[in-house]
Amino acid sequence: MREIFKQEIEQLGLDLVSMAEHMSSAIDKATTALEKADLTLAEQVIDADESIDEIEQRIDEQAVSLLARQQPVATDLRVVVTALRLSATLERMGDLARHVADVARGRYPEVAAAQGRSYDILLDMARQASKVGTQVVELLRTNDLALAASIESDDEVLDRLHEQSFQVVLDEDEDLTRQQIVDVVLLGRYLERFGDHGVSVARRISFLVTGDLTNAVAMVAETSPRNSETS
Amino acid sequence: MREIFKQEIEQLGLDLVSMAEHMSSAIDKATTALEKADLTLAEQVIDADESIDEIEQRIDEQAVSLLARQQPVATDLRVVVTALRLSATLERMGDLARHVADVARGRYPEVAAAQGRSYDILLDMARQASKVGTQVVELLRTNDLALAASIESDDEVLDRLHEQSFQVVLDEDEDLTRQQIVDVVLLGRYLERFGDHGVSVARRISFLVTGDLTNAVAMVAETSPRNSETS
Repeated sequence: MREIFKQEIEQLGLDLVSMAEHMSSAIDKATTALEKADLTLAEQVIDADESIDEIEQRIDEQAVSLLARQQPVATDLRVVVTALRLSATLERMGDLARHVADVARGRYPEVAAAQGRSYDILLDMARQASKVGTQVVELLRTNDLALAASIESDDEVLDRLHEQSFQVVLDEDEDLTRQQIVDVVLLGRYLERFGDHGVSVARRISFLVTGDLTNAVAMVAETSPRNSETS
Repeated sequence: MREIFKQEIEQLGLDLVSMAEHMSSAIDKATTALEKADLTLAEQVIDADESIDEIEQRIDEQAVSLLARQQPVATDLRVVVTALRLSATLERMGDLARHVADVARGRYPEVAAAQGRSYDILLDMARQASKVGTQVVELLRTNDLALAASIESDDEVLDRLHEQSFQVVLDEDEDLTRQQIVDVVLLGRYLERFGDHGVSVARRISFLVTGDLTNAVAMVAETSPRNSETS
C-alpha cells in the first residue's frame, strides 16, 4: 500500500513538471510571437493551451483520488494539497501566456504595441516572464530553495518594468496610437500577473520543503502587490 | 465522530458565506468609490482586504485539518476540496475589488476614467460586478442551481460591456486623456475577471450539488474566455 502511494505521489510530481514544461514553452513562444509578429507561433500557443488544461484535470483527479483512497496525513497530505494548488497556478500561467499570444495574433501582420520605449519595456517583461517559466520548471524538478528565493526576488524586475511601462504610456511626448496604449496596458498586466504566479509557486514549494508558515502567510498578503497594479 | 465532522463542515460553509459577504461589501463600496470619487470608501475597501485574506487562511487550515483528522471520502471529500477552491476564488474576487478601489484612490480628487461613454460603460460593469457579488453570497447560502445558472448566463453582460469599453477607447473621436484610457483598460480587465470568478463559483457549486462533470470540464475551458480579453 505504502509503495503504491509513493509511486502515485511521484507520478503527481512528474505530471506537475510536465504541465510546467508546457507552460514554459507557451510563454517562450508567446514572447517570440510578440517580438516577430509570428502568427504561426501565436496560434501554436493558443491551440496548445488545451493540453495544459487537460494535464491540470488529470492532476486534480489523481490528487482527489489519492486523498480518497490513501487518506494521507502530515507531510503526505501537504504534498497532495500543494499539488492541487500548483496545478491551478500553472493553469493560470498557461492562460496568461495564451492571452499574450492572443494579442500578438490580433495585431498580425503588425507587431503589437510596437513603438519606441514602451515596446522595448514590454519585450523585456516578456523575456523576464519566459525566464520565470524556465525557473519554475527547474524548481518543480529540484525543489531547490535557493532557486525559489531567486524567483521571488527577481519578481521585482517585472514589477519595476511594469511601473515603467505606465510612465511611458502616460508621457504625451511618446508617439503612440490608442491601440498601442491598450496593448501596453493589457500585455503589461498579463506579464506582471504571470510573475506573481511564479512567486506563488516558489512560496508553496518553500513551504512544502521547510514547513515555514511565515512564507505561506506572506503569500496571501503579497502575491498581488498593492502598489504595482494600478500605477 | 460523525457528528463533529458534520458540525465542522457546516462551520466551513458559514466561513465561506462570511468571506463572500466581505467580498460583496468590498465590490459594492469600490463601485461607489469609483462613481463618487469617495476616498474614504476606497480606503475602507483597501484596508478590509486583509480580513478577507484572514478568513481564507482560516478556511484553508480548517479544511486541511479536516482532511487529516476525518479522512473524508465520496461527497464529504468533494465538499472539503471544493471549500479549498472556493476560498481561493473568493480571495481573488476580494483582490480585484481592492484593485478597483486602488484606481479610485489613485485618481482622487478626480473621478477615475471619468469621461463620456467609456465612463458610463465602466460604471455599468462595476454595478454588474456588484450584482455578481451579491448573487455569490446568496448562492453559497442556498446552493440554488437556478441562481448558479443565472450567474453564469449573466456573465455575458459583463463580457459585452467589456468589449464595448475597448471600442469606445479605440475611437479617436472620443475625447480621453491617456490616464483615462489606461484606467478604462485596467478597470475593465479587473471587473471582467471578477465576473469570471463568479462563474467559477457558480460552476463549482453546481458540480457539488449535481455531481455533473460536464460543468467541471466546461469550467476549465471557459472561465477565461478566449475572445473577450484582448479585443
